[in-house]
Amino acid sequence: MNNALAENIRNDLYPSRTGKTTRILDRIDPVVNNRNIIGQYSLDTEQLEQYESDGFLLIRNYIPKEIIHELTDELGRLSADETIRELDNVITEPDNNEVRSLFNLPQMSHMFDKISRSRQLLDIVMQLLGGPVYLHQSRINIKPAFRGKSFPWHSDFETWHVEDGLPRIRCLSCSIFLTENNPYNGPLFVIPGSHKYYISCAGETPENHFRVSLKKQYYGSPDESALEQLLAGKQINGCFGEPSDLLIFDGNIMHGSPDNISNMPRTNLFLAYNSCENPPQEPFCGMKRRPVFLANTDCSPLEII
Amino acid sequence: MNNALAENIRNDLYPSRTGKTTRILDRIDPVVNNRNIIGQYSLDTEQLEQYESDGFLLIRNYIPKEIIHELTDELGRLSADETIRELDNVITEPDNNEVRSLFNLPQMSHMFDKISRSRQLLDIVMQLLGGPVYLHQSRINIKPAFRGKSFPWHSDFETWHVEDGLPRIRCLSCSIFLTENNPYNGPLFVIPGSHKYYISCAGETPENHFRVSLKKQYYGSPDESALEQLLAGKQINGCFGEPSDLLIFDGNIMHGSPDNISNMPRTNLFLAYNSCENPPQEPFCGMKRRPVFLANTDCSPLEII
Repeated sequence: MNNALAENIRNDLYPSRTGKTTRILDRIDPVVNNRNIIGQYSLDTEQLEQYESDGFLLIRNYIPKEIIHELTDELGRLSADETIRELDNVITEPDNNEVRSLFNLPQMSHMFDKISRSRQLLDIVMQLLGGPVYLHQSRINIKPAFRGKSFPWHSDFETWHVEDGLPRIRCLSCSIFLTENNPYNGPLFVIPGSHKYYISCAGETPENHFRVSLKKQYYGSPDESALEQLLAGKQINGCFGEPSDLLIFDGNIMHGSPDNISNMPRTNLFLAYNSCENPPQEPFCGMKRRPVFLANTDCSPLEII
Repeated sequence: MNNALAENIRNDLYPSRTGKTTRILDRIDPVVNNRNIIGQYSLDTEQLEQYESDGFLLIRNYIPKEIIHELTDELGRLSADETIRELDNVITEPDNNEVRSLFNLPQMSHMFDKISRSRQLLDIVMQLLGGPVYLHQSRINIKPAFRGKSFPWHSDFETWHVEDGLPRIRCLSCSIFLTENNPYNGPLFVIPGSHKYYISCAGETPENHFRVSLKKQYYGSPDESALEQLLAGKQINGCFGEPSDLLIFDGNIMHGSPDNISNMPRTNLFLAYNSCENPPQEPFCGMKRRPVFLANTDCSPLEII
């Protein structure tokens, strides 16, 4: 074990996959880092309170329809491109070769770069995270009609911490719905309020876990008893909505999705932002860092376009 | 091939699993066999029209809460009984030994016998099927919390025809919700109007198909192109409801269900009735008959209790 890693583990506020038992720890970090209006699109007090309490906020009709069309067309072009399908950052379904996820979109496409740095998003993201931010990860998830597989409950931050070395919970995702998300096509389910607890999961991280976890996650998914505790007195929330809706969710909220047996694909853009004051350290699992398309190491602040 | 089977196949109005291609055939049989009010609980004109058009009808708060409690308690007793778990008519989950389905309930329990012959159900069933009926099959499906698996699209009648020899579509199911059925716990999805078409499926029936098909059905599930045709201009309907709700659905309606990743089990009682004028012939697939707990051969008319 090198010194940096040893130091890291001594200071680990959110240990996970370090043993046999699941533990529910309190979150130490704030959910909302700045309550001031920092730009014309910043959240108002009511929205901030809802986000803080639930760990997510769904804003209807936020992204103009023409932008959605442009992003969808661009995705179609990228998915159809055989040379792109061969790239490491393009993930296919376990049972066939259909594109399931495309990572690192801003690097591949000017249009996705533009939306990720738009004032409409950054006014909110920089408010919630309290200062300059960069993209830790970006992806489009396509859950295909009839065959899209379920994804087990997990906190994104748990993976970003254990496998990517993000030390604190000062990160969130913006999800832009590119298709309808309804009860039939494998929508995102979240557990409201679960972002306030950190589930320290059992098990250890296998080497190169990301090669399988992008298709189906086995480590870093809490056991049923922890999920029951997060759900005590609460109801699962289905993030149902239309193209153009924007879902903002805390990096540590517990979420999952059922399979898609419907005839409608479910396609969402995810932009995961991290505070520039929370740069990655050595991965807490002691393994080597994941590829940059999964865990960006360039923490330069994004500039609003 | 014996003579009875050869004769059967010559007269097969609903051939399926006889070759490589999927075909969409018209339904020959009526959906509503009698429009008259035959008892105090019979459906009214509006309900009959809705059932005829959609292939299903959800009646809210139909079964008194105390009956639901009694049935649930009885199910608890049966599931906990080790000697019962060993029976052929008790099916467990593919990945573990949890009870997934119990068949042949009226034979196991006076309470289930009583509900299956209640005036509240038979006034409707005998109206829709146009005369005396018997139970072709009865079961409780438990889709357990966190682990309940999805079930692919299928028509019950397709199996009852091919594997059990029911010649005509003159059968239906009553489903009584014993738990909430919501968008999170793997509810039943139906394709409205799909009962008017018969999907002749590709493939052949393997021997003893029922041993695997009760856990996961592979044969008798239409291909995606047929499903797309059934869904053209239509929306999937999720049969969401509360304990006490009654769902009546045509034997030939296309239905399926996603997995259950929620913390709520989804438990429904299914009573599948067939007209006494539509008794089983030899199975159209040419295989031997399925066990009686799956395909009753006693076609004596049920008497209202």
